[in-house]
Formats: sequence, structure tokens, C-alpha cells
Amino acid sequence: MEDYLEKIYELMNDKGYARVSDIASSLAVQPSSVTKMLQKLDENEYVSYEKYRGIVLTQRGQRMGKLMKERHAMLAEFLRMLGVAEETIQRDVEGIEHHVSPRTLESLQALVVFFNTNPTALQSFLQFQATEAPSSEDPIARS
Amino acid sequence: MEDYLEKIYELMNDKGYARVSDIASSLAVQPSSVTKMLQKLDENEYVSYEKYRGIVLTQRGQRMGKLMKERHAMLAEFLRMLGVAEETIQRDVEGIEHHVSPRTLESLQALVVFFNTNPTALQSFLQFQATEAPSSEDPIARS
Ligand SMILES: [Mn+2]
Ligand SMILES: [Mn+2]
Repeated sequence: MEDYLEKIYELMNDKGYARVSDIASSLAVQPSSVTKMLQKLDENEYVSYEKYRGIVLTQRGQRMGKLMKERHAMLAEFLRMLGVAEETIQRDVEGIEHHVSPRTLESLQALVVFFNTNPTALQSFLQFQATEAPSSEDPIARS
Repeated sequence: MEDYLEKIYELMNDKGYARVSDIASSLAVQPSSVTKMLQKLDENEYVSYEKYRGIVLTQRGQRMGKLMKERHAMLAEFLRMLGVAEETIQRDVEGIEHHVSPRTLESLQALVVFFNTNPTALQSFLQFQATEAPSSEDPIARS
């Protein structure tokens, strides 16, 4: 559900409207899955949806969509900060964003702010990662 | 598939054997899902499975199961380090572990090793988090 809301919010912002076909193709799902989810989002008062009339985000839906987008951006910033490549970032963020608790998110955000506020701390981590971390012999990373 | 392999490896280590019913109840799935997955794991040569004879991990399955377990432990250590509570850790790790790329995992592990090697850096983050991070007014964290 969160994925859909995030995408609808994004389409609304970018194009001014969100069509079932656009949502379906950008989430790589069937249009029938989209209309089913729209009914659920409507029941939960995130969107107002009537077939043939289109999708409108409620205020609650706007707010939630914005939060989803901010969460995505924060997680991406965190991974970018650690030196992860852009395409990996997007894939990982899509995979994890809806499974990270508010509490963990809070800590990750604090870590982002901490490193932004203390660039020398980040610098010393990045140098550590580049030179001392046993990444190439690390069995976990190669799974 | 990774969830199943991780659980089988765990049961094997703890009890010396893994039964379909134990796997099903600990993953909260139907036994029929377990037998279906066992066939898939068998095709992929992670386990050798014959109905009524039981489950044996191949060497490849052993290795992979161990990696899954190590990955889980590393992610848990990372979140624990940031001050996340134990029950949140377990839920979050279960949610994200199979969606984190090797590259991101490598960076997170480097961060864990970095903080272990530089306890004052971790200390200064934790103090920052406790006093300066705008967590209570943070809209993302409350989604
Ligand atoms: Mn997203
Ligand atoms: Mn696990």
C-alpha cells in the first residue's frame, strides 16, 4: 500500500495527475492490482477514487505520500553518504524502505545529520572503509 | 528462499535436524509452502530433500545458510549499536536482510567495524543522537 501511495504522490507532483496505467507501468504490476489497491486506499481515506473520474489524494494521503517520499530520500542519502553507487541505492531503498521501523529510521536520520554536521567523522569513516575494512575477504558481502 | 535456508540452517544447528512442521511454525507459513520451497531448494542444490526421509543441507546449503545467519547478525549488531531496542531490531532485520545488496552490506559492516575500532566516534554519535538530533519533531520518523 505504501509503495502505491508513494508512487501516486510522485505522479501527482510531477504530472499533476495519476492514471491507473501510469501507476501500473511504473510499479510493474497489472492495472487490476492498481484498481484493487485504489479501492483499499479509498477505504483508508488516503485517496478518493472513482472509476472513470480519476484519483484524488486526500489531505491524509498527501501527508502520507510526502512522508514516504521523504523517507525514501533520507535512506538514499544515507547510502549515498556511505559511498554506495546510485543504481544500487535505488534498488536497496525500494527493497527496505517499507520494512524499517520509525525508531530505526530515526537513528539512521540522526546518523545522516551527525555526519553532515561532522564531516571529519564521515571522512575518517570513508578513509577507514577504503583502506582498512576487510571488505574483499568479507564472506557476508559476497553472498 | 533465503528465509527458509536461514531457518533450516538455524534448526540444524540448534537441534540437529529440521522438520517441515518446525520450519512452518517458525516462519508462520503453511507446511505446504515449506514442502514446495524444499523442492526448489533441492533443485538449486541447497538441500537434499526426500519426503519421509528428511532434509539434509548440502555443502553449498551449509555455506549459504551460514552467510544468511552472519548477515542477520551483522545487521542486528549495526542497529544495536545505534541504540535501537531489541524487539525492533529483530523485526527490522527480518524485514530488510533479504533486500540489502552486497555492496550496501559491505558499507554497513565497515561502519560497524569502524565504530568498534573508534569507540569515541560512536560515543560522539550517540551523544549527538541523544541531545541534538531533532528526533521528536522529525516528521519522517513518525510515519
Ligand atoms: Mn520508494
Ligand atoms: Mn533472518
